[in-house]
Amino acid sequence: MTVFLVGAGPGDADLLTVRAARLLARADVVVHDRLVDATVLELVNRGAELIDVGKAPGAFTSQSIINDLLISLGRHHDCVVRLKGGDPFVFGRGGEEMLALRAAGIACDVVPGITSAFSGPLAAGIPVTHRTLSRGVAVVTGHLASDDDGYFRRLANPDLTLVVLMGVARRNSIATQLIEGGLAPTTPVAVVESAWTKQQRDTRATLHELGSLDVASPAIIVIGPCAVLSLRDLFVDAGVLA
Amino acid sequence: MTVFLVGAGPGDADLLTVRAARLLARADVVVHDRLVDATVLELVNRGAELIDVGKAPGAFTSQSIINDLLISLGRHHDCVVRLKGGDPFVFGRGGEEMLALRAAGIACDVVPGITSAFSGPLAAGIPVTHRTLSRGVAVVTGHLASDDDGYFRRLANPDLTLVVLMGVARRNSIATQLIEGGLAPTTPVAVVESAWTKQQRDTRATLHELGSLDVASPAIIVIGPCAVLSLRDLFVDAGVLA
Repeated sequence: MTVFLVGAGPGDADLLTVRAARLLARADVVVHDRLVDATVLELVNRGAELIDVGKAPGAFTSQSIINDLLISLGRHHDCVVRLKGGDPFVFGRGGEEMLALRAAGIACDVVPGITSAFSGPLAAGIPVTHRTLSRGVAVVTGHLASDDDGYFRRLANPDLTLVVLMGVARRNSIATQLIEGGLAPTTPVAVVESAWTKQQRDTRATLHELGSLDVASPAIIVIGPCAVLSLRDLFVDAGVLA
Repeated sequence: MTVFLVGAGPGDADLLTVRAARLLARADVVVHDRLVDATVLELVNRGAELIDVGKAPGAFTSQSIINDLLISLGRHHDCVVRLKGGDPFVFGRGGEEMLALRAAGIACDVVPGITSAFSGPLAAGIPVTHRTLSRGVAVVTGHLASDDDGYFRRLANPDLTLVVLMGVARRNSIATQLIEGGLAPTTPVAVVESAWTKQQRDTRATLHELGSLDVASPAIIVIGPCAVLSLRDLFVDAGVLA
């Protein structure tokens, strides 16, 4: 009678943790998000029930409904896996789900995953920190802030690489606020679309140009000197690992 | 003839990625850091050579010596694994190693790992983001900044959870600078020592108290409202997963 909050990582099934793969092989029920890749779901044992609570635009399952579902499943099954893209505790709302489960007296545990905030840039050959370029990194989402609350102005810190998740729709406002906050318009920017999939695309520009780039969700925006790095040409064909 | 820069994650061998475990099983040589756990090294195949370039204080192997070693090994072996604690591209100096390998014409690739910056707090039941508490997170190291350059003053942003790696030795200066920069002295703080090991210890306090806490390296410092959360009491005994 345990609910496991499990990070599914960036999408590639090879980038699941050993522990996550083991849990998928023995789960009774798997409750997953929309962004969890099909190759990951193939690791779920055949007897398990799969429930998609994917928050696609327009097909929204509210957090309270998910919480109630997990509580109900946790009362009736031995091993429930709540599978989340990336890491459950990094913009994953895992804390909220654990608090709801605790209030209901359901045992649970959390298994970290590779966060897309760092593995998305990595997929394009960008280290988020690099000696002489950046001594730290901040990770935020673009969809929570409003245009006029100054949130992104306060994030204009040249000491930090800034990684913005879910920021494509508001990229113009984000760039404007960061420049108002003091970042140079020439600050390097990278936009990594659909990281770790065959559709991955990597666009490089400056902060001044970010607002007018032709890019689409899902994408990760990297802002700062590290965004000039592009070490992907070195990567070997993943096929050699098979 | 490939050098793989591989993230070893936070220490627990179960938290390696599936891909990392597979690479350790077929490596000819593994070049690892001091903080890589013995249980992870047990996954290396028996025929492989193990080289410890751990940067223990006083037993320092310089980065340029490591770069030269990787280049030399990459010329003579089919599969060289450079195994780093956490993630190679998050304070791992993986970018520098890849640039050196590129300059020498050696093929390489990078495999992300679970960063201790997020999994350390998680091990103590702390999500680094949580609705109503924090909309973002910054990760920095304590050992790069000097006491008087204002680096930590500029990091005083109440919108962000601040995770400080390698900051224990300078915790007093860090707290002083953050308070000077505008963070409330009552801001919650957590110090997680030796995360994911049997020696793990979790100390909670306020920013004002951070400087005088009795804590030791290796430890991760979490500063911000999320540091009040402590969901670890919910975790099940890891034994049930065996």
